[in-house]
Amino acid sequence: MNLEKFIANVSDFPKPGIEFKDITPLMANGEAYRYATEQFIEYAKEVGADVIVGPEARGFIFGCPVATELSLGFIPIRKPGKLPREAVEYEYELEYGTNTLCMHRDAIKPGQKVLVIDDLLATGGTVEATINLVKQLGGNVVGCAFLIELEFLNGRDKLQNVDVKSLIKY
Amino acid sequence: MNLEKFIANVSDFPKPGIEFKDITPLMANGEAYRYATEQFIEYAKEVGADVIVGPEARGFIFGCPVATELSLGFIPIRKPGKLPREAVEYEYELEYGTNTLCMHRDAIKPGQKVLVIDDLLATGGTVEATINLVKQLGGNVVGCAFLIELEFLNGRDKLQNVDVKSLIKY
Repeated sequence: MNLEKFIANVSDFPKPGIEFKDITPLMANGEAYRYATEQFIEYAKEVGADVIVGPEARGFIFGCPVATELSLGFIPIRKPGKLPREAVEYEYELEYGTNTLCMHRDAIKPGQKVLVIDDLLATGGTVEATINLVKQLGGNVVGCAFLIELEFLNGRDKLQNVDVKSLIKY
Repeated sequence: MNLEKFIANVSDFPKPGIEFKDITPLMANGEAYRYATEQFIEYAKEVGADVIVGPEARGFIFGCPVATELSLGFIPIRKPGKLPREAVEYEYELEYGTNTLCMHRDAIKPGQKVLVIDDLLATGGTVEATINLVKQLGGNVVGCAFLIELEFLNGRDKLQNVDVKSLIKY
């Protein structure tokens, strides 16, 4: 199935000069959403994932279905103030300012094989932060999977020792 | 399966006097997460849902797996500034101030049978806003399903003409 035809290109969102890749038409089409999810499920089996990790909110879109289909746990990465119990944090640089991501401290057991799933690999800041959180808890990142990879932003440069899969490349 | 034992009660979060129901231990347990999702899937079949709608971020946790397992579309309800194309909006009252939720204007076709899924039914503000958005587009809400219902907050009072299912009641 050609998944690219279900992605809407929206110019100048969220700011001038950015062409936003809108995945909501893909999600709205049950067959396309199912097909894309199956590709992630196959990859999760290939890398032998024990647990799925995904950053809010769009990391839940494919990460949660992969977890439930394979009866694996899903660990959410959240913004500050959302997780009620003791959490580890990682702060990283954005173009302007910084961003912080959090994960519950008991979320990952040392040695667990972790698959990180998100919708988009752009500059790689979010996935790099996610990998850092997993490593703080002793987890072993066995792969990172994305619906879309914006190759011209070189996010893979931040993921040199990690297996990476993306379903659609621009 | 007794799902309640996978919910962590966290006192005084996000503010003093609130006992927060933390669902992350349930999600971290692959068998429990799978079992809960199966209950939602059965309910989606019972009500004959054509499409699943869920508010970010926690509405994605069960809503997305139900959609992919049944090859149905999933429509995200998002906070302002997240959806790139033309959207409908609904503003509602909170204890202090207001909140606004948005949905793409082309997300629902008139007459579609919509199942709304979220993690928690508390006072019912979020689900009421979600139903309003679906109705603005001519959708027919055939059910609302929640992992947890806080019965003492009377959220069902806002859902009197809608079928409601909750897996855990407090």
